[in-house]
Amino acid sequence: MIFGALEAGGTKMVCALGREDGTILEQVSIPTTTPKETIPLVVKYFRGKEIGALGIGSFGPVDVNQSSDTYGHILDTPKTAWKYFDLVGSIQKELSIPIGLDTDVNGSCLGEMTFGNSKGLDSVIYITIGTGVGVGASINGKLLHGMLHPEAGHILLKKHPKDTFDGNCPYHGTCLEGMASGPAIEKRWGKKAVELKDNDIVWEIEAYYIAQALMNYILTLAPRRIILGGGVMHQMQLFPLIRKEVERLLNGYLNTKEIKDMDHYIIPASLNDNQGIMGCIQLAKIALDEVK
Amino acid sequence: MIFGALEAGGTKMVCALGREDGTILEQVSIPTTTPKETIPLVVKYFRGKEIGALGIGSFGPVDVNQSSDTYGHILDTPKTAWKYFDLVGSIQKELSIPIGLDTDVNGSCLGEMTFGNSKGLDSVIYITIGTGVGVGASINGKLLHGMLHPEAGHILLKKHPKDTFDGNCPYHGTCLEGMASGPAIEKRWGKKAVELKDNDIVWEIEAYYIAQALMNYILTLAPRRIILGGGVMHQMQLFPLIRKEVERLLNGYLNTKEIKDMDHYIIPASLNDNQGIMGCIQLAKIALDEVK
Ligand SMILES: Nc1ncnc2c1ncn2[C@@H]1O[C@H](COP(=O)(O)OP(=O)(O)O)[C@@H](O)[C@H]1O
Ligand SMILES: Nc1ncnc2c1ncn2[C@@H]1O[C@H](COP(=O)(O)OP(=O)(O)O)[C@@H](O)[C@H]1O
Ligand SMILES: [Zn+2]
Ligand SMILES: [Zn+2]
Repeated sequence: MIFGALEAGGTKMVCALGREDGTILEQVSIPTTTPKETIPLVVKYFRGKEIGALGIGSFGPVDVNQSSDTYGHILDTPKTAWKYFDLVGSIQKELSIPIGLDTDVNGSCLGEMTFGNSKGLDSVIYITIGTGVGVGASINGKLLHGMLHPEAGHILLKKHPKDTFDGNCPYHGTCLEGMASGPAIEKRWGKKAVELKDNDIVWEIEAYYIAQALMNYILTLAPRRIILGGGVMHQMQLFPLIRKEVERLLNGYLNTKEIKDMDHYIIPASLNDNQGIMGCIQLAKIALDEVK
Repeated sequence: MIFGALEAGGTKMVCALGREDGTILEQVSIPTTTPKETIPLVVKYFRGKEIGALGIGSFGPVDVNQSSDTYGHILDTPKTAWKYFDLVGSIQKELSIPIGLDTDVNGSCLGEMTFGNSKGLDSVIYITIGTGVGVGASINGKLLHGMLHPEAGHILLKKHPKDTFDGNCPYHGTCLEGMASGPAIEKRWGKKAVELKDNDIVWEIEAYYIAQALMNYILTLAPRRIILGGGVMHQMQLFPLIRKEVERLLNGYLNTKEIKDMDHYIIPASLNDNQGIMGCIQLAKIALDEVK
């Protein structure tokens, strides 16, 4: 059985074909412009490929509540062309196959839990630090949904005493995304994150914000493991800095075996930046199992 | 069928008998001293009462993971006499009935979801602001467990610009509990919270911290409803202040129908401070159903 996988992002749509074991057979990328232009190209790619189901990991906010009237629609987004667009419906109408949907970051979380470094764990969070900051979570073995899905890239933080940057989140200024995303780093220092590799204070400040957020997620979600992915996390020197700062902030408060083994508690994504698309394969598989 | 309910707190053990519909038939309070003194009194109370099961809502941290070796034990707590004490085991040995266990705040959350203001919702959080600050949560219809249970009373916050208090959490200083618990209010202002009723700045600062925490919980847990209980929340003037501050902080970011109806989104506990003990009745019922 071949599954279709669609990572629907704000700048591009990654379309792939894959097998149940996570193998990616082929992959193409289509620019995200307007639904009118982009969706027909996506549909054209999958048509005739004999996929058994399609899994979509979408940018948000998106309605992932299956019992809602607007299930599968993009919600109130600054990408105005996509606002309230019926993403799942418009594809299902053309392809007539089961479609699974979640957020891109819940998808990545699922990818790591199914094929990657967190197999067998019931409670995991996945955080991407890239153009934006997104958080996916699985709690009691189920991807976290509720009123909506996590939007925890926007939690509020204390400012680093040496940081004079005012943040670049249009909604909250100094939220996590406003302080720690790739574009925030670039705006604060006037250079791309990748060019700042050897500048220690950049990563001290970056680790300070990420660690504060992790501390709050740990206390709120009680994950058994935390996975950090996205472009900025390719700076591997961040990991020891973040771990140390989380320990400093917790200050002995949580004494679990997981926390005591910090090097295996806060870890990098393990699937070569394919965790998202592999998660979509698994979303497709689950969607097919559900209709069987 | 009569159920036993035990709210195990740091200063007192509330023992009660109740019916499946949440009716409390009788209730006594036993001071919490040492396990050696306190547990026999608790056992003595329930013995011979012909209860079908017992539900315990305990102070934390406590091991609520049923597949763990130390399930039912108190974990690393500053109350040294109780550190690593086998709470469930020591009672079960004497009473030989099914015992359900969760944290006191998860218990309160369950109480409100079963008998109170949040019936039928799958995703609810309950926060108590009292001697400490505790958070219980139900996600996808199940009480939140993972590595541990939520300890979200200790999340980190930005300081109010007019606040010179350094916080009184021995672990984190200015975490939510350190800034907003009853004792924090008393230490900051030199008077008990209840005596400060007419002092506006007290409640402005209090609402500022609570709202910041709620903003982070909303973005992380995506609850469909937020219930605020505990002694401090008897100051009902806090509710409009908190709602307004949450709206200011979110700044239009989440546009759900729940958020648009703020007066029904952030609400007081509804069970006359019996949400905890009524939740224990439900924990007992669930424990009995599980062995059936
Ligand atoms: N190796 C790297 N080191 C530091 N930052 C990087 C690196 N690669 C990409 N970035 C930053 O990450 C952001 C892009 O994130 P990425 O996860 O690749 O994509 P997106 O979030 O758009 O899906 C950009 O701001 C970029 O500057
Ligand atoms: N009506 C009230 N107004 C303001 N604060 C109160 C009120 N009643 C109790 N408190 C404060 O709440 C704290 C006790 O919280 P409570 O929820 O009653 O118990 P606990 O948290 O110990 O279970 C104390 O610090 C007390 O000062
Ligand atoms: Zn933001
Ligand atoms: Zn604290």
